[in-house]
Amino acid sequence: MAGLFITFEGGEGCGKSTQIAALKARFEASGQSFVQTREPGGTPLGEAVRNLLQHDAAGEGMSPEAELLLFAASRAQHVRELIAPAIAAGQIVLCDRFLDSTTVYQGVARAIDPQQVQAINQFAIGSTRPDLTLLIDLPPEIGLARVHKRSDGQLDRMEQEAIEFFQAVRQGYLALAAAEPERIRVLDGNQSIESLEAEIWDIVQSKMNGSITANTN
Amino acid sequence: MAGLFITFEGGEGCGKSTQIAALKARFEASGQSFVQTREPGGTPLGEAVRNLLQHDAAGEGMSPEAELLLFAASRAQHVRELIAPAIAAGQIVLCDRFLDSTTVYQGVARAIDPQQVQAINQFAIGSTRPDLTLLIDLPPEIGLARVHKRSDGQLDRMEQEAIEFFQAVRQGYLALAAAEPERIRVLDGNQSIESLEAEIWDIVQSKMNGSITANTN
Repeated sequence: MAGLFITFEGGEGCGKSTQIAALKARFEASGQSFVQTREPGGTPLGEAVRNLLQHDAAGEGMSPEAELLLFAASRAQHVRELIAPAIAAGQIVLCDRFLDSTTVYQGVARAIDPQQVQAINQFAIGSTRPDLTLLIDLPPEIGLARVHKRSDGQLDRMEQEAIEFFQAVRQGYLALAAAEPERIRVLDGNQSIESLEAEIWDIVQSKMNGSITANTN
Repeated sequence: MAGLFITFEGGEGCGKSTQIAALKARFEASGQSFVQTREPGGTPLGEAVRNLLQHDAAGEGMSPEAELLLFAASRAQHVRELIAPAIAAGQIVLCDRFLDSTTVYQGVARAIDPQQVQAINQFAIGSTRPDLTLLIDLPPEIGLARVHKRSDGQLDRMEQEAIEFFQAVRQGYLALAAAEPERIRVLDGNQSIESLEAEIWDIVQSKMNGSITANTN
């Protein structure tokens, strides 16, 4: 029995955390076991790298190349230590950001050669790819206003970028979704939390049923 | 005026640190300015990564892929923040381990696909390559005996590998040197400290004179 690997993507303040918590509550209420994780992070090594990427003073002046390689290092460990074993054990894995974040943030918004980003991503993930990616789309102005409100001005390294960076991120995500419509589902982040939650639950249930059907055939 | 980029390579306990200190003393005595640095490390970000690679408990169970990417992240930052600007400013840069360590430790001893290692290394360094590499060659039995003696049993993550790992490292280094004899000079680590120091000083002086000649032609 193979598991199901579901990733959440989107710009700052798009509502990923809220929706992951809601999906988690749905799973718990229905007795469905799952593994919840995040990137960068998800393992002790990954969380140490996350701290370097987001908060540590050692990250000041970090080059785009070093940043990409740190995200990839966190991911390589995450896939091998946690995600791939969980999928192999038949688990549903929910991951807050994965592959597509790097493709978009480093490959599009930081303007690193996309082929280089893809090659390094590929090295990091091996054969572990998401079965379903839920992309919550939102104009960056709205997302950043939410971030500023909740953070009380304490922004991490990425959140301090200019608005053009986040506009490039959004366009990068939408281009990815256009290229892989089967895997990446674009959701309107401007609808109510409840309505978005219901839409996500429908998509996830369909995917789970499809997966179970596929496995029992 | 372009500077000179000199790297030191070799297995554990080969005498790199002693010889770098000796060369540093020669430079100081002759009024020659230089920059001394090391890998992993050399920048605040690189030193934080070094701690993850060598000592931090978060590094336990690290996959070879994550390890390679962390070395590359440290190097990408090191090249852009310190090494390339120093060379561009005409400095002599002395670096304890660089490119070849990753080629050998991850590509040969950890058995990651050498083409992958080369591609990731290339991404990390861009166009910054050593002008001269001093490889101190020593049978690993002798080097490890030195390490055990000086460390009083406190070994870092890499030093705890089996003897076969270090034999593969040695053979990997010698194969690199055979492929690039102009850049990589193989030195006998079994000779006296003084004799090795004199040999290194001769090589470095020749390289400096050659470099100056080349620049004034």
